[in-house]
Amino acid sequence: MPSNRGPATEVKMVLVVRGELRLTAGKMAAQVAHAAVMLSDRAKSREANLQEAWRQQGQKKIVLTVERLDDLEKVERAARARGLPTVWVEDAGLTEVPPGTRTVLGIGPARATDLDPVTGDLDLM
Amino acid sequence: MPSNRGPATEVKMVLVVRGELRLTAGKMAAQVAHAAVMLSDRAKSREANLQEAWRQQGQKKIVLTVERLDDLEKVERAARARGLPTVWVEDAGLTEVPPGTRTVLGIGPARATDLDPVTGDLDLM
Repeated sequence: MPSNRGPATEVKMVLVVRGELRLTAGKMAAQVAHAAVMLSDRAKSREANLQEAWRQQGQKKIVLTVERLDDLEKVERAARARGLPTVWVEDAGLTEVPPGTRTVLGIGPARATDLDPVTGDLDLM
Repeated sequence: MPSNRGPATEVKMVLVVRGELRLTAGKMAAQVAHAAVMLSDRAKSREANLQEAWRQQGQKKIVLTVERLDDLEKVERAARARGLPTVWVEDAGLTEVPPGTRTVLGIGPARATDLDPVTGDLDLM
C-alpha cells in the first residue's frame, strides 16, 4: 500500500517541450505522451521500484518548456550527469516538422529531490 | 520486423480531450499522456499482439477534442459497443479543475478500421 502521508519520497516524470517549434496543442500532447510511454516502459524493466512508486502516487507528470534545442540539450546533459533516465522524442515528420526533429525531452520517473535541481527553474508549458 | 508497406493494418491510439475545460496546453498534455500510459499498460497485459503492432508502427497517437462531457460519453459508449479498450482520465484536481473531473477519454490501441467509425469525425485538438 502506498502512503500518501509523511516523508515518502515524491516520484515524478518531467516532459520538456521545445517551444520554438510552435507545435499545435494536440501535436505537442501526442509527443509528450510518446515520451511518457517510453519512459514508463523503460522504468518498468530497469527501475521497477521507482516505476511502481510513481504509479502508486498517481503517475505525476509535469510538462515544462524551454525555447531552443540547445537549451533542451543542456537540460539533458544535466539530467544524465545525475544518472537520471532521459528520452528524446523525434517526430516522424509527417505533418508539422521535418523528420527526425527533436520535439520533447522526457526525464524520469525520478525522485523529486533528484529532478528538481535539473528542471526546477524551467517554465511550465 | 514490422512492415511499413503493403496492407498491414494500421494500429493507433486516440485521445479525446474535453474542450469545455479550457485546460492549459501543459496540463492537457499531461492528461493525454496519462491516458496513453494507462492504455499502453493495459494492452500489454490483455492485447499483447495489438500493443506490439502499435509499438512497432511508432506508437501512433491522435489527439482529438469534443466540447462537452456528454459528447465525450457518447464517444465512449460507441467505442465500448465495438469492444474497443477505453480509459477515462480523472484529474486529481490539484490545480485547474475540481477533483475527479473527467478530462480525457483514451481509446486503443486499436485497428484504424475499428476506431475510425467511432472517432473519424471528431476535430483535431
